[in-house]
Amino acid sequence: MPLKEGDPVTIWIDIKRVYLVKLTKGKRLDTDKGFLTHDSIIGKEYGDTIKMSRGEALLLKPIPADIYTTFNRPSQVLYPKDVAYMIYISGIKPGDTIVEAGTGSGFLTISLAYAVGANGKIITYDIRQDMQDTAKFNASILNLIDRIEFKNKDIREGIDEKNVDAIFLDMPDPWNAVPRAYESLKSSSELIAFVPTVNQIEKTYLAMKNQGFIDVHAEELIMREYQVKENATRPKNIGVIHTGYIIRGRKSIKGTSL
Amino acid sequence: MPLKEGDPVTIWIDIKRVYLVKLTKGKRLDTDKGFLTHDSIIGKEYGDTIKMSRGEALLLKPIPADIYTTFNRPSQVLYPKDVAYMIYISGIKPGDTIVEAGTGSGFLTISLAYAVGANGKIITYDIRQDMQDTAKFNASILNLIDRIEFKNKDIREGIDEKNVDAIFLDMPDPWNAVPRAYESLKSSSELIAFVPTVNQIEKTYLAMKNQGFIDVHAEELIMREYQVKENATRPKNIGVIHTGYIIRGRKSIKGTSL
Amino acid sequence: MPLKEGDPVTIWIDIKRVYLVKLTKGKRLDTDKGFLTHDSIIGKEYGDTIKMSRGEALLLKPIPADIYTTFNRPSQVLYPKDVAYMIYISGIKPGDTIVEAGTGSGFLTISLAYAVGANGKIITYDIRQDMQDTAKFNASILNLIDRIEFKNKDIREGIDEKNVDAIFLDMPDPWNAVPRAYESLKSSSELIAFVPTVNQIEKTYLAMKNQGFIDVHAEELIMREYQVKENATRPKNIGVIHTGYIIRGRKSIKGTSL
Amino acid sequence: MPLKEGDPVTIWIDIKRVYLVKLTKGKRLDTDKGFLTHDSIIGKEYGDTIKMSRGEALLLKPIPADIYTTFNRPSQVLYPKDVAYMIYISGIKPGDTIVEAGTGSGFLTISLAYAVGANGKIITYDIRQDMQDTAKFNASILNLIDRIEFKNKDIREGIDEKNVDAIFLDMPDPWNAVPRAYESLKSSSELIAFVPTVNQIEKTYLAMKNQGFIDVHAEELIMREYQVKENATRPKNIGVIHTGYIIRGRKSIKGTSL
Repeated sequence: MPLKEGDPVTIWIDIKRVYLVKLTKGKRLDTDKGFLTHDSIIGKEYGDTIKMSRGEALLLKPIPADIYTTFNRPSQVLYPKDVAYMIYISGIKPGDTIVEAGTGSGFLTISLAYAVGANGKIITYDIRQDMQDTAKFNASILNLIDRIEFKNKDIREGIDEKNVDAIFLDMPDPWNAVPRAYESLKSSSELIAFVPTVNQIEKTYLAMKNQGFIDVHAEELIMREYQVKENATRPKNIGVIHTGYIIRGRKSIKGTSL
Repeated sequence: MPLKEGDPVTIWIDIKRVYLVKLTKGKRLDTDKGFLTHDSIIGKEYGDTIKMSRGEALLLKPIPADIYTTFNRPSQVLYPKDVAYMIYISGIKPGDTIVEAGTGSGFLTISLAYAVGANGKIITYDIRQDMQDTAKFNASILNLIDRIEFKNKDIREGIDEKNVDAIFLDMPDPWNAVPRAYESLKSSSELIAFVPTVNQIEKTYLAMKNQGFIDVHAEELIMREYQVKENATRPKNIGVIHTGYIIRGRKSIKGTSL
Repeated sequence: MPLKEGDPVTIWIDIKRVYLVKLTKGKRLDTDKGFLTHDSIIGKEYGDTIKMSRGEALLLKPIPADIYTTFNRPSQVLYPKDVAYMIYISGIKPGDTIVEAGTGSGFLTISLAYAVGANGKIITYDIRQDMQDTAKFNASILNLIDRIEFKNKDIREGIDEKNVDAIFLDMPDPWNAVPRAYESLKSSSELIAFVPTVNQIEKTYLAMKNQGFIDVHAEELIMREYQVKENATRPKNIGVIHTGYIIRGRKSIKGTSL
Repeated sequence: MPLKEGDPVTIWIDIKRVYLVKLTKGKRLDTDKGFLTHDSIIGKEYGDTIKMSRGEALLLKPIPADIYTTFNRPSQVLYPKDVAYMIYISGIKPGDTIVEAGTGSGFLTISLAYAVGANGKIITYDIRQDMQDTAKFNASILNLIDRIEFKNKDIREGIDEKNVDAIFLDMPDPWNAVPRAYESLKSSSELIAFVPTVNQIEKTYLAMKNQGFIDVHAEELIMREYQVKENATRPKNIGVIHTGYIIRGRKSIKGTSL
């Protein structure tokens, strides 16, 4: 299917030069490796290569992980490995309604919107309007804006939605949002928090336990990428060695000592 | 919504006693911590606790990760952390059509079926009929059998489907399936392989590079779970320290040197 | 040089059956893989194999890491990787005088005594006499007892020795020993603490900073052992994934803000 | 004891500005944070602070790990965590005689010379004269040159020394040095190799097994350093995530199937 105006495209030049754009007639992408016009992309297909002013680029169908590689991330600490695990372990599925705070630059928001499909809904809370503006712009590139409701509110003061399928917290003090999250969640559904420091693990975990969450876990993921060469394969020497900790549990109806 | 016959339930007694069942009148679950009848569960809700012959259990809405905890896994090496990352990074979404080999006990198969929703489709290849029978049984408990087509065939000899949205390989020699996978994939779509040994990383990665896959990565995830106690929080001492490596790339139309 | 009565020997049957003994006429070693007499070992050499009642064993010259494999370790959390790093990074050398607390089963004590040589000295504090008795027994097998002085005292209440070359703390509240350790250390020398929980990292680190230690670091080591087979090499699946954290710094003379 | 000409000093300005020098009248150390003269250090003590042209520095008694921080390391892949474990696990002790190849910039050489004390001896082989010149210079700063013998020879073609207490290999093809190492080692003593790629693990391990080494292990160490702040402690985000693998075993006299 040929690409047309409004389609999102991941323009891949090399591992360090990846650009996520929404095709717009008359626009031009400038990079330190040359430029190309959006018009030259229209009519091409995902998977095609395209000539730039110098060299060439590949046109890829965007996936949520491309957001991580290409977006403006003023507040980013979540990495694809974390978002992947949080989404999977939460048990969310197409059509679900999900609450999230804070919005940040929208990486998790957009990943959630992608996972729940056209019939799903993400309601995202953040007290910072500027962050939400960035996230809105990012979501609009991927044409996912219709699945997301932005609320410029403090989630610790209340969650308007009831009976939601999962709640994700990426904020400095998730423990202060735990009581409201419990009320708002469908029973048996998951609360998932992400925190960068060891001090926050304990506070979040114990707040969830005390609130009546069950099957509570605190976990961290360490990723290593390999540099593959014939007969000389090894992990890359330098890399991200820490992002944060994931704490998650499921809501039991009355609180149980289990 | 009250639970009724045919509904799947995760019966959670403690972290080591988790049972995934399909409610069937007249059936009984026996454990070393007491028993309960399916009939006593009917009419309860997800999130409720239930009295057992001794003690009590929690009734949870099953999520794919429960499969890992509870299923019979004769061939299992994939862990939730791996399945989570493979699904996320592949860019699959509700409604997609996906090919997978081998079926194994169905952990990845079922996780994929869950993620693509009611309009998606998983076609899973395995040369072992006994493994597929186990996987069918496991999928039927979760009522996901309609989204899965089982093929008792060798994927290295050909893939019937064309234009698929992603291909997942969990087999001893994924490099031998790479040429067929390339033909079968929609352009720009992902091939994701999982292998347990370091020797397989290089073979799979180079086969993908040579075939015309782009943005190829080899990665591993190490997970640590924390034991949280007030003022005495630390990672658990003993745990799974290795599962395998994930190799993934996207199909470029003609093969490019990028 | 032929082995004689009183010599220490590591008897190695397989990776899980390693026994550290002091040769004593008339004694016998019984294992689930057969037995052998000490008398049959006398006259053999390190590196020789020896017939047991069934199968055979290897006679090895003991190294400190054998202590870890073979000793009775009622309180052990330190692993060879940790002891190795603590010793190396402390900058201790042959002939040094070192203070340690607590003694525990003596794994660190003996490793330190081995490293400082015949002209070195270890003074080890512990409030538990039973632990020190175990450690004494362990040290006597390796003929290192002359280099170690055992003090059944609480190190938090004072360190008799002055001008020592390094101090090692493996105790629940190392921060309470930091002021005494500072007084007792030669200037520029190292204090090294080992703690199992995340909560203890911060308390120990900040106590050292506040006391006038410089070049303070908190580090952890994760070890993976590989299972090597031709064309099928990979890390072992299950293993020790956490032992503890090492906090270390050097004494500056007056305390400096550096 | 006041510092005098010829003494080695670690000049510590901050974590990124650490300089290892041998005090020489008339010399001056220039840094981007100011300068100081060696003459101003003479008469001071280890642990003292010293005024620089701007700000101040700390005078520390050098430890082997300072070599890592400060030396010119054109070929360095070994890190303190690796050197620490290799030395400890080898069972070397004061007075031992050790063979090593290659010399590289001398980081391992100097660490070994430090550990064996004034009565020990390191014989280090390298085919590159320029590397050995660098290592000689580095060793001279620490006044350890008398314990080290430099041989500009290929260790794969023969080891002159017999009955040595341990052999360390940090070279591209350690498997080719295994037969010579076996001949040269005292029985029961250790051969320890360090290699950066996964491919080298298997070749080295199997060569050692086939040669008659026993208790053979292949291990890797991953280190994480923590950034400690009150109530906000976490591992540093970016760091060294891979250095290499350590393969080690002990010589059995005739070769055994154990």
